[in-house]
Amino acid sequence: MKRIDERAADELRRVKITPDFMPNAAGSCFIEWGNTRVLVSASVKEGVPSFLAESGRGWLTAEYAMLPGSTGTRKARERGKADSRSIEIQRLIGRSLRSVLDLEALNGFTITIDCDVVQADGGTRTASITGGFVALGLAVKRLIREGRLEKNPIKTYLAAVSAGIVEGRALLDLCYVEDSSAEADMNFVGDEQGGIAEIQICGEKRTIRDEEFAALLGYCKKGVGELIRKQKEILENA
Amino acid sequence: MKRIDERAADELRRVKITPDFMPNAAGSCFIEWGNTRVLVSASVKEGVPSFLAESGRGWLTAEYAMLPGSTGTRKARERGKADSRSIEIQRLIGRSLRSVLDLEALNGFTITIDCDVVQADGGTRTASITGGFVALGLAVKRLIREGRLEKNPIKTYLAAVSAGIVEGRALLDLCYVEDSSAEADMNFVGDEQGGIAEIQICGEKRTIRDEEFAALLGYCKKGVGELIRKQKEILENA
Amino acid sequence: MKRIDERAADELRRVKITPDFMPNAAGSCFIEWGNTRVLVSASVKEGVPSFLAESGRGWLTAEYAMLPGSTGTRKARERGKADSRSIEIQRLIGRSLRSVLDLEALNGFTITIDCDVVQADGGTRTASITGGFVALGLAVKRLIREGRLEKNPIKTYLAAVSAGIVEGRALLDLCYVEDSSAEADMNFVGDEQGGIAEIQICGEKRTIRDEEFAALLGYCKKGVGELIRKQKEILENA
Amino acid sequence: MKRIDERAADELRRVKITPDFMPNAAGSCFIEWGNTRVLVSASVKEGVPSFLAESGRGWLTAEYAMLPGSTGTRKARERGKADSRSIEIQRLIGRSLRSVLDLEALNGFTITIDCDVVQADGGTRTASITGGFVALGLAVKRLIREGRLEKNPIKTYLAAVSAGIVEGRALLDLCYVEDSSAEADMNFVGDEQGGIAEIQICGEKRTIRDEEFAALLGYCKKGVGELIRKQKEILENA
Amino acid sequence: MKRIDERAADELRRVKITPDFMPNAAGSCFIEWGNTRVLVSASVKEGVPSFLAESGRGWLTAEYAMLPGSTGTRKARERGKADSRSIEIQRLIGRSLRSVLDLEALNGFTITIDCDVVQADGGTRTASITGGFVALGLAVKRLIREGRLEKNPIKTYLAAVSAGIVEGRALLDLCYVEDSSAEADMNFVGDEQGGIAEIQICGEKRTIRDEEFAALLGYCKKGVGELIRKQKEILENA
Amino acid sequence: MKRIDERAADELRRVKITPDFMPNAAGSCFIEWGNTRVLVSASVKEGVPSFLAESGRGWLTAEYAMLPGSTGTRKARERGKADSRSIEIQRLIGRSLRSVLDLEALNGFTITIDCDVVQADGGTRTASITGGFVALGLAVKRLIREGRLEKNPIKTYLAAVSAGIVEGRALLDLCYVEDSSAEADMNFVGDEQGGIAEIQICGEKRTIRDEEFAALLGYCKKGVGELIRKQKEILENA
Repeated sequence: MKRIDERAADELRRVKITPDFMPNAAGSCFIEWGNTRVLVSASVKEGVPSFLAESGRGWLTAEYAMLPGSTGTRKARERGKADSRSIEIQRLIGRSLRSVLDLEALNGFTITIDCDVVQADGGTRTASITGGFVALGLAVKRLIREGRLEKNPIKTYLAAVSAGIVEGRALLDLCYVEDSSAEADMNFVGDEQGGIAEIQICGEKRTIRDEEFAALLGYCKKGVGELIRKQKEILENA
Repeated sequence: MKRIDERAADELRRVKITPDFMPNAAGSCFIEWGNTRVLVSASVKEGVPSFLAESGRGWLTAEYAMLPGSTGTRKARERGKADSRSIEIQRLIGRSLRSVLDLEALNGFTITIDCDVVQADGGTRTASITGGFVALGLAVKRLIREGRLEKNPIKTYLAAVSAGIVEGRALLDLCYVEDSSAEADMNFVGDEQGGIAEIQICGEKRTIRDEEFAALLGYCKKGVGELIRKQKEILENA
Repeated sequence: MKRIDERAADELRRVKITPDFMPNAAGSCFIEWGNTRVLVSASVKEGVPSFLAESGRGWLTAEYAMLPGSTGTRKARERGKADSRSIEIQRLIGRSLRSVLDLEALNGFTITIDCDVVQADGGTRTASITGGFVALGLAVKRLIREGRLEKNPIKTYLAAVSAGIVEGRALLDLCYVEDSSAEADMNFVGDEQGGIAEIQICGEKRTIRDEEFAALLGYCKKGVGELIRKQKEILENA
Repeated sequence: MKRIDERAADELRRVKITPDFMPNAAGSCFIEWGNTRVLVSASVKEGVPSFLAESGRGWLTAEYAMLPGSTGTRKARERGKADSRSIEIQRLIGRSLRSVLDLEALNGFTITIDCDVVQADGGTRTASITGGFVALGLAVKRLIREGRLEKNPIKTYLAAVSAGIVEGRALLDLCYVEDSSAEADMNFVGDEQGGIAEIQICGEKRTIRDEEFAALLGYCKKGVGELIRKQKEILENA
Repeated sequence: MKRIDERAADELRRVKITPDFMPNAAGSCFIEWGNTRVLVSASVKEGVPSFLAESGRGWLTAEYAMLPGSTGTRKARERGKADSRSIEIQRLIGRSLRSVLDLEALNGFTITIDCDVVQADGGTRTASITGGFVALGLAVKRLIREGRLEKNPIKTYLAAVSAGIVEGRALLDLCYVEDSSAEADMNFVGDEQGGIAEIQICGEKRTIRDEEFAALLGYCKKGVGELIRKQKEILENA
Repeated sequence: MKRIDERAADELRRVKITPDFMPNAAGSCFIEWGNTRVLVSASVKEGVPSFLAESGRGWLTAEYAMLPGSTGTRKARERGKADSRSIEIQRLIGRSLRSVLDLEALNGFTITIDCDVVQADGGTRTASITGGFVALGLAVKRLIREGRLEKNPIKTYLAAVSAGIVEGRALLDLCYVEDSSAEADMNFVGDEQGGIAEIQICGEKRTIRDEEFAALLGYCKKGVGELIRKQKEILENA
């Protein structure tokens, strides 16, 4: 049985990251991941949310949205009414990126990661986290270069990838067609040392067995390793 | 090192489920889980959401909220403004319960699970899922009894529990004080056969290692087994 | 002609008030009034609304909502859209309780009374006021015990009850079935000395005559007297 | 002790009602009541709200707002956020006018009474009800003239007036300055036969005694009689 | 070919401006322009919006709404949902009036112009600007009289008028019937010296030619001249 | 005096239009106009808004937003609260494009033009209209190719450009720095035959004189001619 686009079971789609796509933002990139494409920017402002006042810590938050033209059927803008899927995804993005940040080293700043999907073909949340880490890294480099930050608050590299069970078989990095027929899927966020930042397994059609879980986890760790190599190429040359 | 309330590392808090607490709803219960207490009801209405029209399937959705007096500092009502944490939790509740439902057997009905936290002391989302399953079971029994459903759409029992790493040590079912100092925590939703419906690992302070993950998973599976025994006592006698 | 539940025309339903049902709040009770059941809490915060800044006065406000499972047909949550009936009721609750408060003695504090209906069978607003007074009394006792208030700001006891004209006959404390067929109804809020805090007569089907009004008023004053006796039992022993 | 504007205790301010002030509406008037001035219109549309579908009944509803320039300090428009005082008032207006309507004779129509305060000097809600009855009467006349209604659905005349206790003394029709220092006030809605449609007593500063209530009620009945005479002059000549 | 109301092509409808119609506002007028009638008030408050803090400048803003009874089919109030046509119009009103204001001379004040349409028959936005200038002028006179402003911040008179192409023919000041069949229309805002503050040409049905544009512009300048004469009569005598 | 980027007074910035940038939409382009960059898509759905039901006409509407990272200071998303500037701009985009559409030939379809600003440097609304015309043209070509439309509903080419008075001098196509110091500016929308679809002159700082207006109009017509040549290259080759 072949995958729809001929990839091996543990093979990522082609990923290309263009840094500094939105020059008005502190850091930004355009991440193309197969046919999924996301614009990501990191904006920095001085001051922290009120619940962190006097805490000696900075903050990072994220917002996620799909552009109306990013899907075959136009996606209505979230004006007036929150889209609960977007809220769930942007909370995941923010929490994941905070897990590798030393918030005390970011004292006095709030960074907002904005992820706007230009084209959706599965994996928009993992593309957002992986691209969001690059935008964050570029913004931090700029803050250090401008003398506004003394110390790099990023503790380790971080990337995200999905995997799923399709017709009983574990597959890495599902595209939309695969995702639609998946029995269960998993989003994995991991760091450079193999640490787990977040796992979301979701068996909407059925629950999954332990050995299936082990296979998905192995694929995801491999995928995260490859993505971190791509992030390093960009950030070490920025 | 003792736990704050003297429990063993793999010991649940006391759980008590009172069925039919809200007699106007199709099914309901009041779940007391240590000091966490949640009112859960299942309401049934005829008709399905528009995206399921003509699909031959029913639907289940969930809503979650904290009563203003449930926490030490009054929790503002979500009037006018969605609370993104609540949205994330209610999506988890709905998705988890749908994973054990045969939606075709529920054709023509929408069930809404409402979870209102009366007192919060950690684990409100797992109490909501575990109690939500009981309210769902009671509502389904009533639908069958009234001849509105022919076949039981529930495929297996389902319960949820949390676990976390506190001071480097894996602990089952964190209360609020433990949760506040946890390095990472995990919410687990599982079924009667040991299947995994959903895992959410969240390492907000740091990422976690594989062996930590294995310990948390083991504790959670044990906890879910005990909770399902409690659910059975109620539903088999209803 | 008998009442649906065999009560005399001037007889209250059974009322039971459980104090401290929500221990995280400053004061709270669970009031069961026939089949109507309401969770009430009183939360205290330091600071007053901006329109009272520098006035030397404190404030009390109220919020009211029905839990979705409290009625036979699920009551949608008020997310995004205000429910005008709830707004009218919560303004009545706040205004009534403020009429027996010395706001200057409460200087620097805002108390919020939250009333969440668990089960609705007529009289939810009067149950909210009567239970709200108990929650308020418990919260004030706590503030005095903790040395945060010097003087009791409550000037007198206060309770509320409804009455109505059903098939031409005056009846005290209508349950839902009676209320549905009432020609006119009246909500009465009164104090321990027989003073009137608020009367709302509402003749939606027809206007009412003076002698009908006199009968309703007499019944209500009797009912309020009985309710205040119940409140005293709890607050004098708290 | 004289009233601020020299009136006797039981004397209304000057009331002038100009019919058909907004010719695009089915019925309308401009009511000037002392310095309080309100624009009132009645709009008619075919169809009834969904909760009355197939009921054989029509409906009447009301909306109330203050123009931003109607008060000394600009009143913000209710865009985005409901003003709870306005909601309470417009529910009172609608309920009062429905109490004299035979809704079955209005089958198939919804009438909306819009009350927009141009200048506020106390008594805006009673001016709205009194003027609203005139706009309603003019709209009904038009519907009958155009052959859209067969039978007059208005059962009796209806008007509203306020009274209050100021420095211990009962006074009819409080202007803003009197209202600000009132110990308690009452809004009364009554019909031509002396029937009571609605009484709202509100003792925000203190509760009131039975004999005070009797005095206020007597004044209000007198005032309503005078207002109905003014309404008749207009409607019998329209 | 005659106009529907017999006017010449370059003839304004009858315009009547009643000053001080809402005495609680700092400045106000009721402008009747043919059958279009608009209530306009100017409210003054101390303080400026945050984007002007420390700028040494004051501000003027505008709001526009149609009363529900102002049109044949009831216009729903903008509660909860912004009406995009109203937003576009109120931005035009504010921008136009600011073009003749020396904002530095208004330092420390924000003026809000509220325009509420009582009856709509075409040209509500130009009536709002023309009447808004009068309300502004009256408010400024009051501020100077009260010693709160030293210098008149109004640099020149300003008025607005519309024109359009109907059946190929240029016409000044379209009423609703003419406007409905116009091929293109133009709103013009001009000052006393013939300067152009704002032109909005809108060819929704087709684009327009240069010579048509020239004709419309000529008519509008003539109309503005006449309107400014009316404004002067009022403001010079106030 | 030189322009900040050395352009002649009547010289456009470099404009590059990449068609089909969002392949999931019916038509789309990425328009780069100096440093201003906008993503534009045209989505098609069957059905028309309710106000056009049974009219034999189709519809076109537009939405406009700025991505948060498009400006130096992060632009908050319009969630919950409409941004009035965006509303004004998107109404202009929709109205302009409809002026060259035969809506009867579009019967049964609604086209939505979405304009999302990736980078803002002046002229985002004119870039949106000019790019919107290309996205619309591509979508119409697709509808015809797929046999869903019989006849091209586009009557003529349409483009938009701005001009302004800077230090007393007329300049075409202002970039952000020029726009910030402009005394007045004008947005012009024109067609291939020299017809005027819309002119918006805005003299916020002062009113402008007739000869200034003539100069701006001449420059804009020249600019529109050049832009239409670029649109033709793309659409004739698509």
